Amino acid sequence: LDYQHVQVPFEITLWIMLASLAKIGFHLYNKLPSVVPESCLLIFVGLIMGGIIYGLNDRSPPVMDSDIFFLYLLPPIVLDAGYFMPSRPFFENIGTILLYAVVGTIWNVFGIGFSLYGICQVKAFRLQDVSLLHNLLFGSLIAAVDPVAVLAVFEEIHVNEKLHILVFGESLLNDAVTVVLYKLFRSFCEMPAIKSVDVFAGVGKFFVVGLGGVLVGLSFGFTAAFTTRFTKDIRVIEPLFVFLYSYLSYLTAEMFHLSGIVAIISCAMGMKRYVEANISLKSHTTVKYFMKMWSSVSDTLIFIFLGVSTIGENHEWNWPYICFTVIFCLIWRALGVLVLTFFVNRFHVNTITSKDQFIIAYGGLRGAICFSLVFLLPDFHRKKLFIAATTVVILFTVFIQGMTIRPLVDLLAVKRKRESAPTVGEQIHIRFLDHLLAGIEDISGHWGQYYWKDKLEYFNSKYLQKILLREYDQPKSSIVLLYEKLERKHAMELAQAGQLGHGPAHPSFLSSDRTVITDQKLEDTLNPAVLDNIQEILARNLYRIRRTGPAYNRHTLPGDSEPTEQAKEILILRHKSL
Amino acid sequence: LDYQHVQVPFEITLWIMLASLAKIGFHLYNKLPSVVPESCLLIFVGLIMGGIIYGLNDRSPPVMDSDIFFLYLLPPIVLDAGYFMPSRPFFENIGTILLYAVVGTIWNVFGIGFSLYGICQVKAFRLQDVSLLHNLLFGSLIAAVDPVAVLAVFEEIHVNEKLHILVFGESLLNDAVTVVLYKLFRSFCEMPAIKSVDVFAGVGKFFVVGLGGVLVGLSFGFTAAFTTRFTKDIRVIEPLFVFLYSYLSYLTAEMFHLSGIVAIISCAMGMKRYVEANISLKSHTTVKYFMKMWSSVSDTLIFIFLGVSTIGENHEWNWPYICFTVIFCLIWRALGVLVLTFFVNRFHVNTITSKDQFIIAYGGLRGAICFSLVFLLPDFHRKKLFIAATTVVILFTVFIQGMTIRPLVDLLAVKRKRESAPTVGEQIHIRFLDHLLAGIEDISGHWGQYYWKDKLEYFNSKYLQKILLREYDQPKSSIVLLYEKLERKHAMELAQAGQLGHGPAHPSFLSSDRTVITDQKLEDTLNPAVLDNIQEILARNLYRIRRTGPAYNRHTLPGDSEPTEQAKEILILRHKSL
Repeated sequence: LDYQHVQVPFEITLWIMLASLAKIGFHLYNKLPSVVPESCLLIFVGLIMGGIIYGLNDRSPPVMDSDIFFLYLLPPIVLDAGYFMPSRPFFENIGTILLYAVVGTIWNVFGIGFSLYGICQVKAFRLQDVSLLHNLLFGSLIAAVDPVAVLAVFEEIHVNEKLHILVFGESLLNDAVTVVLYKLFRSFCEMPAIKSVDVFAGVGKFFVVGLGGVLVGLSFGFTAAFTTRFTKDIRVIEPLFVFLYSYLSYLTAEMFHLSGIVAIISCAMGMKRYVEANISLKSHTTVKYFMKMWSSVSDTLIFIFLGVSTIGENHEWNWPYICFTVIFCLIWRALGVLVLTFFVNRFHVNTITSKDQFIIAYGGLRGAICFSLVFLLPDFHRKKLFIAATTVVILFTVFIQGMTIRPLVDLLAVKRKRESAPTVGEQIHIRFLDHLLAGIEDISGHWGQYYWKDKLEYFNSKYLQKILLREYDQPKSSIVLLYEKLERKHAMELAQAGQLGHGPAHPSFLSSDRTVITDQKLEDTLNPAVLDNIQEILARNLYRIRRTGPAYNRHTLPGDSEPTEQAKEILILRHKSL
Repeated sequence: LDYQHVQVPFEITLWIMLASLAKIGFHLYNKLPSVVPESCLLIFVGLIMGGIIYGLNDRSPPVMDSDIFFLYLLPPIVLDAGYFMPSRPFFENIGTILLYAVVGTIWNVFGIGFSLYGICQVKAFRLQDVSLLHNLLFGSLIAAVDPVAVLAVFEEIHVNEKLHILVFGESLLNDAVTVVLYKLFRSFCEMPAIKSVDVFAGVGKFFVVGLGGVLVGLSFGFTAAFTTRFTKDIRVIEPLFVFLYSYLSYLTAEMFHLSGIVAIISCAMGMKRYVEANISLKSHTTVKYFMKMWSSVSDTLIFIFLGVSTIGENHEWNWPYICFTVIFCLIWRALGVLVLTFFVNRFHVNTITSKDQFIIAYGGLRGAICFSLVFLLPDFHRKKLFIAATTVVILFTVFIQGMTIRPLVDLLAVKRKRESAPTVGEQIHIRFLDHLLAGIEDISGHWGQYYWKDKLEYFNSKYLQKILLREYDQPKSSIVLLYEKLERKHAMELAQAGQLGHGPAHPSFLSSDRTVITDQKLEDTLNPAVLDNIQEILARNLYRIRRTGPAYNRHTLPGDSEPTEQAKEILILRHKSL
């Protein structure tokens, strides 16, 4: 037996296997998943496993390594979230989301930090050795809403799209703020004295970390799109590039101390439309499926590890501190949402209702990011207290809030997500309204979101598509392709039968019987001159439809050298048919 | 900049990225891949990169770690090979393949070992310190044909299926022999004296290592199939199980010193048909695509690493030893193939032609497995000579043989693979012949392959399918499902229109116009009694087709409680229509 040799991959595979089997187990009984969120059950499995390990070994089970979490488990989930992010509601609410993510998180950090410092001043609690800076550091890691936990719960309760994107978008974008504040306070803790310059530098860092992440992500995203232009002959490695480039964007951002989450989301959102157009349908299925699979496994592993890591002897229990942490987390979040929404609603027609506000405040779940950050803290004598408080907050939010949010949503009759996809008519109207509003904004001189969206669309179709797409002007919809194929086939048949022009060039080609009859009637009533004219128009149209080679070429204009070629080809077909 | 933190995943991602980009690069120019095999080009890229690293650092570039090769790079390739192995030609030629793989490899090992020992006795070559045992050890690692190299070359030249499976099957199954001989000689090298018991134990190990691998693989394969029975509600992690279980089978086999390659192939071949039936079509696309992608990347990385590892200072050059190694490898393989094929042809009607024999002998490419094994050798003073000889043999076979095999195949006019898939008629005839031959074998008392195949098929449909498949008696073919759906829809329409029985229940449902006319004629000519009878039959048939719920139930027999239900449902439909 040579276990040493295969230990690392064997144990990784076994953990993933355990996670997958646990997932199957829950879904075997249909009733369980509808009552308890999966995340709770997985933490529960983790707790049991941790208990078993603790019981057998008589020492604390291994805690989740922060490196493993940040480098291997988090990226798949965030990539999945970014890739499948509904971009329309996201960009429509980007202002509100950023307000919640930046101002809201700062509000929470300082609110929780200062009020916990106040608690520490009470002599009876014996917490006077916890400094303000340590409280703020703790606040910075406990304030951030966790995308993994939010996703796990909100995917199951199906609230309306706007509400979902507000909570979920906040949980993703607050990463930049959390990273900055956490690192700032941690470096302050280690500094002998804090200068005001450092504080200003910290404020400046917000923009660097956030915008830097966006830049890194977009550049990798566009490179990925550009790379998939050249994979036509080697379809099998297409899906790889989506994963490789997004992962590289995450790692690069982390390397430069930027926000990896923001980077990978920008990368995924930036590359999506171009990659989808370039790669084959099967590659796309693989990308989608594998992303879902990967994020689902990561998510499962994270919750199981959370459970396992909870068990052990690295906790210091202090009732007042822990209870007040939970209370302050709830209060400051509720206050923050109320105040911020008040300002948001003043500037929007489509306001956020008080029910929605409640769900936003109540949906502020904490998860594995806090947990990993608290373990990354430098060693100091109250670290175990912070670990205990973080664990309690996570368990409280995931179990109590996660399990009650569904009944609350039902009780409050929060507007649900519409189940059906928008109809073609709706889509056309939405697009029409977009153009109309862009025009109105342009005329009125108000540079609003529609104006910028229109400009971006123009830039995209004018430059980006030409660089990033393989054949940027070909219709990609399968129904258009099928229609063209049918038309082409029919045109060929007609040309070969020597009766070019008599057939239908009408869109209602599929109901051919009726059209043929109409054509025959037409022939009876029209005089030869008109018929010849019609024949010519039809011949030209049919010819044009038949040309589906790469129509775009850098050196020729569309329509170049067409007349002679067309004449030649028609001649050949005529010749054949005679 | 915090490079340390992300180094490991960053560098892995970059290597994979490099490999993928190199692959794209070759395919950009269509002419290159048709002249030179990809493996050669990739080794060439590796050589250049190794040269650059060597030039910059002024020390040998890192060699490919044997652990990385055997634990991470080899399994995906072998899994892909096993999963897409054409099982019919494989099992039809299993005897020949095993003969080549077992007897042929032993022949090569001892042939090369002893003749190199003979060369070592020539005083002028200054090789007298290389013992017989060391030569045999070297023979055991250099004799094995490499599946990765064979696959890379044979996938491009499209020889006929039998020839392909003979070379490829041998390269896969000789792993068991190589593992045993290599470990045996290595342990002999370290032993002070060799007892005859050890030699006999070695012979016994062949069976343990090979059959043990098959057993481990099959048990994991069947477990995988059984697991996918329960993934109906959670489709997204289905593909994972295929990968997890096969990887576990490989690792488990390696852990017990069995043949990992044999295990993973048995696992893949064992699970394939059941998994395919259980998982959704999209999951299956993902499995197939991801397997191809993964193996393709592994393969690329292996060849690049081979190139990189070649550069450096770990070679000891000795012209005679190296030249004679190449010559003996060629001669012994050619002799082995000739002798073994002579015996094979005596027992087969469908003989192996001399052209085929030449390609089998010539296609014995060596690759990364030899390379990894030679680096795994215990340190002794001639290790660098062995490394040099192995490198030369690999480069010779991959470059010279790999590049000339395609022109040779053209020149000899070796029978090619048929490009088109067998028609339905052919498939039906093949199956019919199988049954016929099984019957003949049974009658004549000759327990040949058809007899065993039939028994296995019986066992499969009687027991295995019931345990491993979710709905083992439902038609899975999409055309059958479509037909059923159409029939069902039509039956519904008919029942709702109150004219049950008047419509066509004929298979030529799609050409409905003609059938309707025929039906009307029938109605005119037949008397009412016959018509009523037909109506009843049709109604029953239509009803039965309409039932597509899970037809199999452990507690009810098919057809249970059907009459009343049927009557009830038809009554309801009738009622509606009136």
